Amino acid sequence: MSTEQQKFRAERDTFGELQVPAEKYWGAQTQRSLQNFNIGGPLERIPEPVIKAFAIVKKAAAQVNMETHLDKKVGGAIVQAADEVISGKLKDHFPLVVWQTGSGTQTNMNVNEVIANRAIEILGGELGSKKPVHPNDHVNNGQSSNDTFPTAMHVAAAIEFNESLIPALEKLEKALHEKSQAFDKIIKIGRTHLQDATPLTLGQEFSGYTQQVAYGIERVKATLPRLYNLAQGGTAVGTGLNAKIGFAENVASKISDATGLPFVTAPNKFEALATHDAIVEASGALNTLAVSLNKIANDIRFLGSGPRCGLGELSLPENEPGSSIMPGKVNPTQCEAMTMVCAQVIGNHTAISVAGAQGHFELNVFKPVMIRNLLHSTRLLADAAHSFTDNCVVGIVANEKRIASILHESLMLVTALNPYIGYDNAAKAAKKAHKEGTSLKEATVGLGLLTPEQFDEYVRPEKMIGPN
Amino acid sequence: MSTEQQKFRAERDTFGELQVPAEKYWGAQTQRSLQNFNIGGPLERIPEPVIKAFAIVKKAAAQVNMETHLDKKVGGAIVQAADEVISGKLKDHFPLVVWQTGSGTQTNMNVNEVIANRAIEILGGELGSKKPVHPNDHVNNGQSSNDTFPTAMHVAAAIEFNESLIPALEKLEKALHEKSQAFDKIIKIGRTHLQDATPLTLGQEFSGYTQQVAYGIERVKATLPRLYNLAQGGTAVGTGLNAKIGFAENVASKISDATGLPFVTAPNKFEALATHDAIVEASGALNTLAVSLNKIANDIRFLGSGPRCGLGELSLPENEPGSSIMPGKVNPTQCEAMTMVCAQVIGNHTAISVAGAQGHFELNVFKPVMIRNLLHSTRLLADAAHSFTDNCVVGIVANEKRIASILHESLMLVTALNPYIGYDNAAKAAKKAHKEGTSLKEATVGLGLLTPEQFDEYVRPEKMIGPN
Amino acid sequence: MSTEQQKFRAERDTFGELQVPAEKYWGAQTQRSLQNFNIGGPLERIPEPVIKAFAIVKKAAAQVNMETHLDKKVGGAIVQAADEVISGKLKDHFPLVVWQTGSGTQTNMNVNEVIANRAIEILGGELGSKKPVHPNDHVNNGQSSNDTFPTAMHVAAAIEFNESLIPALEKLEKALHEKSQAFDKIIKIGRTHLQDATPLTLGQEFSGYTQQVAYGIERVKATLPRLYNLAQGGTAVGTGLNAKIGFAENVASKISDATGLPFVTAPNKFEALATHDAIVEASGALNTLAVSLNKIANDIRFLGSGPRCGLGELSLPENEPGSSIMPGKVNPTQCEAMTMVCAQVIGNHTAISVAGAQGHFELNVFKPVMIRNLLHSTRLLADAAHSFTDNCVVGIVANEKRIASILHESLMLVTALNPYIGYDNAAKAAKKAHKEGTSLKEATVGLGLLTPEQFDEYVRPEKMIGPN
Amino acid sequence: MSTEQQKFRAERDTFGELQVPAEKYWGAQTQRSLQNFNIGGPLERIPEPVIKAFAIVKKAAAQVNMETHLDKKVGGAIVQAADEVISGKLKDHFPLVVWQTGSGTQTNMNVNEVIANRAIEILGGELGSKKPVHPNDHVNNGQSSNDTFPTAMHVAAAIEFNESLIPALEKLEKALHEKSQAFDKIIKIGRTHLQDATPLTLGQEFSGYTQQVAYGIERVKATLPRLYNLAQGGTAVGTGLNAKIGFAENVASKISDATGLPFVTAPNKFEALATHDAIVEASGALNTLAVSLNKIANDIRFLGSGPRCGLGELSLPENEPGSSIMPGKVNPTQCEAMTMVCAQVIGNHTAISVAGAQGHFELNVFKPVMIRNLLHSTRLLADAAHSFTDNCVVGIVANEKRIASILHESLMLVTALNPYIGYDNAAKAAKKAHKEGTSLKEATVGLGLLTPEQFDEYVRPEKMIGPN
Repeated sequence: MSTEQQKFRAERDTFGELQVPAEKYWGAQTQRSLQNFNIGGPLERIPEPVIKAFAIVKKAAAQVNMETHLDKKVGGAIVQAADEVISGKLKDHFPLVVWQTGSGTQTNMNVNEVIANRAIEILGGELGSKKPVHPNDHVNNGQSSNDTFPTAMHVAAAIEFNESLIPALEKLEKALHEKSQAFDKIIKIGRTHLQDATPLTLGQEFSGYTQQVAYGIERVKATLPRLYNLAQGGTAVGTGLNAKIGFAENVASKISDATGLPFVTAPNKFEALATHDAIVEASGALNTLAVSLNKIANDIRFLGSGPRCGLGELSLPENEPGSSIMPGKVNPTQCEAMTMVCAQVIGNHTAISVAGAQGHFELNVFKPVMIRNLLHSTRLLADAAHSFTDNCVVGIVANEKRIASILHESLMLVTALNPYIGYDNAAKAAKKAHKEGTSLKEATVGLGLLTPEQFDEYVRPEKMIGPN
Repeated sequence: MSTEQQKFRAERDTFGELQVPAEKYWGAQTQRSLQNFNIGGPLERIPEPVIKAFAIVKKAAAQVNMETHLDKKVGGAIVQAADEVISGKLKDHFPLVVWQTGSGTQTNMNVNEVIANRAIEILGGELGSKKPVHPNDHVNNGQSSNDTFPTAMHVAAAIEFNESLIPALEKLEKALHEKSQAFDKIIKIGRTHLQDATPLTLGQEFSGYTQQVAYGIERVKATLPRLYNLAQGGTAVGTGLNAKIGFAENVASKISDATGLPFVTAPNKFEALATHDAIVEASGALNTLAVSLNKIANDIRFLGSGPRCGLGELSLPENEPGSSIMPGKVNPTQCEAMTMVCAQVIGNHTAISVAGAQGHFELNVFKPVMIRNLLHSTRLLADAAHSFTDNCVVGIVANEKRIASILHESLMLVTALNPYIGYDNAAKAAKKAHKEGTSLKEATVGLGLLTPEQFDEYVRPEKMIGPN
Repeated sequence: MSTEQQKFRAERDTFGELQVPAEKYWGAQTQRSLQNFNIGGPLERIPEPVIKAFAIVKKAAAQVNMETHLDKKVGGAIVQAADEVISGKLKDHFPLVVWQTGSGTQTNMNVNEVIANRAIEILGGELGSKKPVHPNDHVNNGQSSNDTFPTAMHVAAAIEFNESLIPALEKLEKALHEKSQAFDKIIKIGRTHLQDATPLTLGQEFSGYTQQVAYGIERVKATLPRLYNLAQGGTAVGTGLNAKIGFAENVASKISDATGLPFVTAPNKFEALATHDAIVEASGALNTLAVSLNKIANDIRFLGSGPRCGLGELSLPENEPGSSIMPGKVNPTQCEAMTMVCAQVIGNHTAISVAGAQGHFELNVFKPVMIRNLLHSTRLLADAAHSFTDNCVVGIVANEKRIASILHESLMLVTALNPYIGYDNAAKAAKKAHKEGTSLKEATVGLGLLTPEQFDEYVRPEKMIGPN
Repeated sequence: MSTEQQKFRAERDTFGELQVPAEKYWGAQTQRSLQNFNIGGPLERIPEPVIKAFAIVKKAAAQVNMETHLDKKVGGAIVQAADEVISGKLKDHFPLVVWQTGSGTQTNMNVNEVIANRAIEILGGELGSKKPVHPNDHVNNGQSSNDTFPTAMHVAAAIEFNESLIPALEKLEKALHEKSQAFDKIIKIGRTHLQDATPLTLGQEFSGYTQQVAYGIERVKATLPRLYNLAQGGTAVGTGLNAKIGFAENVASKISDATGLPFVTAPNKFEALATHDAIVEASGALNTLAVSLNKIANDIRFLGSGPRCGLGELSLPENEPGSSIMPGKVNPTQCEAMTMVCAQVIGNHTAISVAGAQGHFELNVFKPVMIRNLLHSTRLLADAAHSFTDNCVVGIVANEKRIASILHESLMLVTALNPYIGYDNAAKAAKKAHKEGTSLKEATVGLGLLTPEQFDEYVRPEKMIGPN
């Protein structure tokens, strides 16, 4: 674009003619959107998984249309062009930002225009001529933005959940589980209210984290049934006007074949266009996941705090210099990246909820912002789960000496005495030891509550880590 | 308290002696909390469903303990006292607010103290003597606040979901479904982007609302499996120290019997004490529900807007004078109450998420605020669903004359012509009619695109409400 | 209501006649709302500060109206009845819940009806007769719910900010400042990323908290100018129809006199009725405050963690037994109550934002939910600030021995060597000490970087707490 | 990178040696971060305004250091390199993502490394040699990530507020104000609760929007005083260790000179490092702005709804085809983009609040996510304000005929009769007209309440748009 003269060609829509960069496949409506929505710049483009999902939809629609009425040559070229979009090789042809019309019509037209022009090219026609492939009449045949965009939202979300997020979470779960087993014999002080409490094993502590992630996977999967319901076939307002009978079911079936995911046509298309409750629901699962991961990452960095003035129970992998001023400092940076991601996901969920609540009549017009946030959260959680697993969890080492040392100073081992001397006497012993800075044993014996032998028999951390 | 002298008795805990109102069953720890947490006043008390759930837990624990080691007389009195709490007749004995210790220890002790003193009274003992029933050693036997409070959270939430929220939603769903059927033949203008679009039936529009509520019920139910997992048996840190082997399973089983709900012991107690992800998840379902109901209530009030200067398609029941200054004004007040509830539920969900994200080590200490918000949302949604159904939905009447009149003015009936004259020509006709203020037919014929007869054959709203 | 027969009287509005409890002053519209909005129960009533503010408005309006046209006898009785409402003695006559019409019309009418009936009674008339005092024509004279409710919102919020919240924050600021001074000479380890960092004084640490609260007060005060703008005089849609010229200004002036706060009439009444951006803004200040207080309370409980297995730098006041199972346990319960309040305030802010965003045309109909949440947040923050100050901050004690002991183990004192040996060499020394478990001095000398004398000269914590 | 062999050079930090792309100025720590934080990809890079602000800080620090101790040649080269960063020409050298360490240390080092290497190059040295310019010892001299990152946050935010957001809002305010004046004489129906209410002028309606934006500007400006406080000089933990006395003040002064904004050194550096309450506060102003703009955009699209079946009072500019299936459809797309932006800003605010609440001890480690969201919101609001103004507001046309026609059908003109016949009689007339479908005049006269002449005298919309 720099030194050479950029070349343009004319494209037209029902508003008139526009100049479009000659080397791009997009048409007049895309160009118009570019000019009318100068909001946020290239970083704010419609996410790639949406474009890919759109192409999957367009391909499926062409295939179904060919079975009834669409010219095979035209349909074939559409399929070929859609495949190129799916492959990612045309990704520079989708310049539109999220902050456009709330139905995503302009992105639907961007996809229609690119596929149409590329199909025209394949068939030897002239770009912009709309012949022999028309973006509306052929590529968008039997469709509306109002059903294709929600379909693409669900397809994109379901693919990202299945191919990206769930595997990342399973890997994290596995890593935590392995640590839980490796730390199975390490007895440590428990902490409730941040205060010393009764002991548990470090393995038990990690088993809680493992369970959180396992439930998180369950929660994500529990949203899939509603994501698998596709709006396609509702056309403009949910009635299916201008779509053939059977189109909805057949497109869903083709999409299911193409993705290997059990997509079906939505039982009610009015709900599927006018609301995106399924996206809000899916975001809710990510929000819960963020809550879980924030807790895990927080615990790990606190347990790894120190090296000398913190809790110091864990050593986290040292991945990089921690400070530009304090030499030798190492920080729990993976935990920090993870907790920042969690804050973002919680915020994105608010954005999605606010957007989802404001649909009107036959259409929710917050589609792009909703799918943007859902995919943002999904990508961040998946990537952060990998990074956190690889660069932190698998390398965690227990500082067994320190763990043992502070465990034995704890006064809360007194809890083991409840069955022998009662809660009130046990409290007296603990308070005496705390006030006088002595050991629990000294205090208990000093109060005449037990003999030293009894104390040693009753207070044994290794017997305090389960019911009896 | 006013004219007569209030009487007090002495109660004591490990911190010393305190004066407690003589007519109250609570003890020293409750009194201490009252004095130390003067935050928010009586409106901010721990919700009644939590107190009731706590008593269910205490009763179950006593029953199980009697099977192994608890004195039958003591246990029997605890069961009797717990039953009185469950019945609601002791509700003035639970004065503590949500804004106390984050483990809810003080509410657990409030329950322990009230049950112990009432049991002492049943057995003819002296209030405050802790004999023959001790709040910790007997009522709290084998338990900790750290496992009873989460258990009570889940029991309370599951009961409210099953007994209050789901029936209310089912009633709303039924009412919407009946309207959907009653409005089955009324063809109306569709609106996308708030702009005139292709037609649908009013019944189809209401079928979308029905589907939203149906999914909402599914979503609420989908959270129950994890709410049915009970923390009881984890005691202080999840290990189950001081609980008998089998206690966890047996208490869950008793609670299941008592409530008729399929509670089981949680597979991992560390997760169950240190996190309340299940509450965040449940709140997520309510958040989605709020998003759905906001859309429905918004649509209904907009469709009912007028009477003369709005859309005017629906008449909503007139329940009360609408204005203190504008005589005769009637407003969509049930919709307003509902949308205010939705805003609250979305906000409560943020509070729950923020709280859920901040657990540390073996305990999340945001328990009271989390269950308060979940139960607040549940109650508001259930009550609002009833009110909205009874006072609005069932009385909605379609203004068929107006609906028909504006439908026939719409230009978007042009969409039916796409298959005959193509998108671009159809656009020309619509734009011409819009610019010249004429009918679509005049414009189409005027452009020579169709004969009047063809137009009448092709453009028939009643054929535009489904695929063809 | 129990044993005796409850008595009723007839009241009527434009919808007809209704039975109202004989001992209540409210009229037909209040009764109708009670029946139509069975949502949430008595805990959900319109907050008392709103009722009080409403009465201040009604009194001011009557006073102004008497100056122009309102009968002095009628006006005088209205003023007297309003004073009784302001005093709180009629508070049982305001039974309506937040979840009513979104304009708060029913609460405006509740106030009109109670004042009218009480004024009728004062003047010897018959309750329900609307003679000689009519709730609309006299009490509501020149007013609409649409301007009185927003006026009451601003008056209530401004009073609670000035009389409750700001003094509570000032008290907390003072307590923190005093601790900051008392801890002025205690040098301690700093912690960044939870990891050991360079030293500071405990007083400096507390000065940061003090500054946060000081800014918080500034932030709350910065919202007052817009809260001082009153909607009164806008009547139904902002135009002021049916109000006299000058009414708006004069009512604001009377309210200012009555409250001692600089209320003025809003420059634009359309904005003042149709939006409550000023409430959203005010809630934003509370949200920031919650963020600040969460940080402070978190720090304090972490610094007080232990007693033996935590950081242990502070001892917090021991206010109550901490555990129902662990004898002698003491917890940072005031910090927990505070952080729970913070979570609630952040959630309430979301509710307010969602509600504020959804006004339409001439009226925002989320008024009750918005003011409910703002006052809820205000009350909780004010009460929690008092409780936290009195029961925690003032009693904090520094564990100087422990503070000194861990400070001297820290490796981050190495930072003092950057100017002498450079960042890279300093890092080598710190890493060597960390790996070998030796002191920093041993490592530095061992690497031949400094002599022992140089080390002692350069590394002096007391010289590391300021620029040089 | 494709066909040719990519070249690398060795860089080293305290963790060892790494290969860095030869054509990049960054060093080992940047490279290490790239490898360790593979989260989100290039779209998630630290925002450019932060990089620019960082360079402003580095330049100022070098200038101040040269006045005391920094070699002029070294300092001069740093200044020159920093200027190149400020100009944007080195922007490909800042590849790090937001999801890194929470202190932003890696970005600080990225800036240090790029400036050092470029300065080395300027001075004829060897990239990676750290001679004669060392990234820590020279570029970062007297600084820490912990004070530079917050300083860069404030500088970036203040610049974007002043140079981007406020001008955009002022332009929008002006456009709304001009419409308000242009529509000054157009009397229209008011709508409260979406229902017909008393009249106002379209100009009055737009004056409310204008006021909202004017207040929004005030609110944004009100946050600037705290953004102008800079953390620089606090170094690692707020004490200023290793910074010279006076450095803090002098750097602030240089930054003020460079930007033309009144930056000063923060009064308390502990608060400035450990909290980012000023960012939360600033985000609160943007949240309120989002609430305001959502209302305005919603109103405008509803008032423009139709063209034939909606309210139809306004015609919005037709900027692009609105539908891929409905020919000739035009949608309020600018309103949709704006409301989507508003949802995002509200969500970003939640993310910022969650992040801001979780600082610990001497450092908040959610710095990158906080500034990312603040700048995201700022950019979106500024861009959307421009787009909305240019592509929508300035082109709005009032449909005066329709406005007049529906106004005169309204029943709420009855309100003008309150002073003449009382509220209750007026209600009767309105209800009669509504029930019988007649005009208000017919009903009023029919009830014998007024003569036709009286009616015509009293009910005159043009007299209903102000107090009397």
